[in-house]
Amino acid sequence: MVISREWHLLARPRGWPKPEDFALVERDVPDPGDGEILVRNHYMSVDPYMRGRMNAQRTYAAPYEIGKAMYGEAVGEVVASRSDRIAQGAFVRTMAGWREAAVCRADTAEVIDPELAPLPAHLGVLGMPGWTAYVGLYDIGQPEPGETVFVSAASGAVGSIVGQLAKTHGCRVVGSVGSAAKVRYITEELGFDAGCDYHDVDLTEWLGEAAPDGVDIYFENVGGDHLQAALNAMNSFGRIVACGMISGYNEPRPGPSNLHSIVAKRLRVQGFIVRDHADRKPAFLEHVGGMLRAGKIRHTETVVDGIDNAVQALLQLLEGGHHTGKMVVSL
Amino acid sequence: MVISREWHLLARPRGWPKPEDFALVERDVPDPGDGEILVRNHYMSVDPYMRGRMNAQRTYAAPYEIGKAMYGEAVGEVVASRSDRIAQGAFVRTMAGWREAAVCRADTAEVIDPELAPLPAHLGVLGMPGWTAYVGLYDIGQPEPGETVFVSAASGAVGSIVGQLAKTHGCRVVGSVGSAAKVRYITEELGFDAGCDYHDVDLTEWLGEAAPDGVDIYFENVGGDHLQAALNAMNSFGRIVACGMISGYNEPRPGPSNLHSIVAKRLRVQGFIVRDHADRKPAFLEHVGGMLRAGKIRHTETVVDGIDNAVQALLQLLEGGHHTGKMVVSL
Repeated sequence: MVISREWHLLARPRGWPKPEDFALVERDVPDPGDGEILVRNHYMSVDPYMRGRMNAQRTYAAPYEIGKAMYGEAVGEVVASRSDRIAQGAFVRTMAGWREAAVCRADTAEVIDPELAPLPAHLGVLGMPGWTAYVGLYDIGQPEPGETVFVSAASGAVGSIVGQLAKTHGCRVVGSVGSAAKVRYITEELGFDAGCDYHDVDLTEWLGEAAPDGVDIYFENVGGDHLQAALNAMNSFGRIVACGMISGYNEPRPGPSNLHSIVAKRLRVQGFIVRDHADRKPAFLEHVGGMLRAGKIRHTETVVDGIDNAVQALLQLLEGGHHTGKMVVSL
Repeated sequence: MVISREWHLLARPRGWPKPEDFALVERDVPDPGDGEILVRNHYMSVDPYMRGRMNAQRTYAAPYEIGKAMYGEAVGEVVASRSDRIAQGAFVRTMAGWREAAVCRADTAEVIDPELAPLPAHLGVLGMPGWTAYVGLYDIGQPEPGETVFVSAASGAVGSIVGQLAKTHGCRVVGSVGSAAKVRYITEELGFDAGCDYHDVDLTEWLGEAAPDGVDIYFENVGGDHLQAALNAMNSFGRIVACGMISGYNEPRPGPSNLHSIVAKRLRVQGFIVRDHADRKPAFLEHVGGMLRAGKIRHTETVVDGIDNAVQALLQLLEGGHHTGKMVVSL
């Protein structure tokens, strides 16, 4: 029998989650049954969507249950298997995050290749964030070479991949981030054409300079002032890829006062959740995996050490300013 | 030579337009040249989009010029023609509104059939508002029978047609209007399944009752609180047909605080301007003209008398509460 620590949600937060809303609990993990595997997680993901799972109302996925383990993506090693599909010793990605070890049905686990990239990258560029970037940019945004793409949270797990994919597609790419160091990261390391620290600029003015031909695609991760500025800068028939609006997840804030631009500019604002696009996962893995093998895409992971710090890591992610690229927790 | 009075824009309004921003000016109308017609307007249209034309910045159409006649749809009789295409005595619809008479190129005028419907209806159900309703509902909203459609400004020129078209398509249709009389109009005359006076209800609560299965299509004419409530009520994969957001045309107001629902519910918010859909005009005229001939669609026009009152009519339209159906000015 294996003992695992796991994070439970104790209370549904109103506004910003507090550490007391969570508890780290020790549990016995049973032996795997028929068709099941026992996974020892090495890394777990923290993602903005997890704030939504803490609310009672169901959106596109079941809310976290009070007094039960939370869930999310994790990668780990199969330490016992009663499945023909996945052998002991394999590395897999599952939704059994927020715990050190778990028994999963083998058909819900994906075998990953630790040779292709280090394990944390399988939660970032090769995981849900990279897949989100791929589907959001290509399928939702439908970019044409020569168009201008504006990415908010551009140094984050999704934004950093969106920008690089858009560059290889022949687009002008500009991004907003939260520090001068991140501006350097996206322009010097990732190849963005321009970047700004949103604390230091009027975003509408900055976009006027950084995107002199206007913005054709806004990849929306933030909401609020970013959306207002993007609406000002959008060209007619532009597309807003509504991937996330992190600025409003904890405290409802008024939206932009210029939403009527959606009419006058005939914009399409399209929300999406990547798991609706499972048919595109093979194409994503081939495309981005190929770029990775060829050394044509960069990725960064911010690793927080230890399951004890997982809640703190999520709170820092929601707050912003504490990480670059994909934030993961090593277990 | 014909003398015509015409409305000029004197100053670009900030916020609500004032009567002093306009002047009624007398002008000589020249004789028509080759390929031109001289039209004596009988009715002119006032429409919400005209507020946008008063601003300096170009959106999808040229702004009104200071010190020149404004423009808009009008219907009238051809009193002189130097075109083989349109004979004297024909009735036409042109963009030469805001004046009593005008010379137009014949190829910019549409001949209309005054037998099919009274002249004002050619500015409403058979004119730009009807065409907007048709394209917005069918092409942008893409309704399926059995879905629920929520229409704001539901007794207006566009909303009243949207609701009736959606009913014939097999949808549940609910609408918000600005008075108890209009609630009776849309439910008893137009066949809406439910209606509310938005002054009297919490729109989110009301939609919970009026649309118990949620809203699949929100036909957006208003913005602000209406959009907030619609976002609360929308079903996953719903569509918001962004036709207008009249509540923000004169005074910028903060947008909804729940725009992140666009992501979680995977909504599509699509702005459109009907003139981009000229290819759909024949289908619209056949469909709605056919319904009209068969007595299967109702329409109301609010007629304001006299060109002197045209600016006042537009201001009342923007304010809301002064009209039902299509507002026109008789000249």
